[in-house]
Amino acid sequence: MNREQMIERVKGQMPERRWLHTAGVMETSIKLANRYGEDPERAELAAILHDVAKYWPVDRMETIIREQNLPQELLAHDKQLWHAPVGAWVAEHDYGITDQEVLDAIRYHTSGRIGMTKLDKIVCLADYIEPGRDFPAVDVIRELSGQDLDKALVAGFDSTISFLLKQGKRIFPLTIEARNDLIKE
Amino acid sequence: MNREQMIERVKGQMPERRWLHTAGVMETSIKLANRYGEDPERAELAAILHDVAKYWPVDRMETIIREQNLPQELLAHDKQLWHAPVGAWVAEHDYGITDQEVLDAIRYHTSGRIGMTKLDKIVCLADYIEPGRDFPAVDVIRELSGQDLDKALVAGFDSTISFLLKQGKRIFPLTIEARNDLIKE
Repeated sequence: MNREQMIERVKGQMPERRWLHTAGVMETSIKLANRYGEDPERAELAAILHDVAKYWPVDRMETIIREQNLPQELLAHDKQLWHAPVGAWVAEHDYGITDQEVLDAIRYHTSGRIGMTKLDKIVCLADYIEPGRDFPAVDVIRELSGQDLDKALVAGFDSTISFLLKQGKRIFPLTIEARNDLIKE
Repeated sequence: MNREQMIERVKGQMPERRWLHTAGVMETSIKLANRYGEDPERAELAAILHDVAKYWPVDRMETIIREQNLPQELLAHDKQLWHAPVGAWVAEHDYGITDQEVLDAIRYHTSGRIGMTKLDKIVCLADYIEPGRDFPAVDVIRELSGQDLDKALVAGFDSTISFLLKQGKRIFPLTIEARNDLIKE
């Protein structure tokens, strides 16, 4: 499957506006890769596929989490988190991706993790700041993204955590550990 | 050692203003125990001792954490967290406390934990709202403390997490898990 075929297939998995978001993440991931010394092709590949499972029915995601031995603790947390590890599984099994770092960048693009690779950070940050995004802290995070990858990503996680606090929702502990790890570095 | 002897000994471990805080936590713990059906004497006992190690030198706390096999991950987190588990150790070994729930209420009064007991919650919440406390959310938490122990405590944890976000500091994962657990309930 070449790049264009993959893009067409991913487009078919989501509504048009979500594809526009994915195109924004592709563009921003390439820019960040060039800025911070990562391979822009790998960054774009992870970006193309990062939301491949975003619009899948919840029960289809749940089936993959249960039957393919993805981390079962996901089931106790917000369904918004599920599409990332499910997307990595889909990228590997339906799209034939074998680059483990690309798969990890898809897998951890929402939660983050301890010991994030540069590729993880780029896709996760691009997801926060692609041109279509609009939320209170986005301009601050965009500004930081030109200066310091880790600080920008911490600001991204801060915005997620603040949002969940205000909403009275549970916070995925891995995101806290990812943020702690970036601050420790 | 009777109550008065214990109070005199604890007073000697801290500056006068911190003793006033402890006296506030005692008073508030008794009120919360009466309100939510816990034994006020046990609540007061945990309150008397909750900050017994707060003004110990850092190296003395570190020695206890290392040599008495307290959770070693504490050493990688903010020193502000250390006095609680060290205090529980001191309460057991220097003050002869044998009531494990009282010791746990001291141990987890700063971090919280998954599966907090009513006593844990009372001491932790009293520490947030005793009459001497003054911070942005304290009135909201005091108001909630008259209605719902769990919601008040979640609001307390929210204030801590927000503070750490603003300060750019790391967040202790156990506090997130404690908050998640209270929201799940």
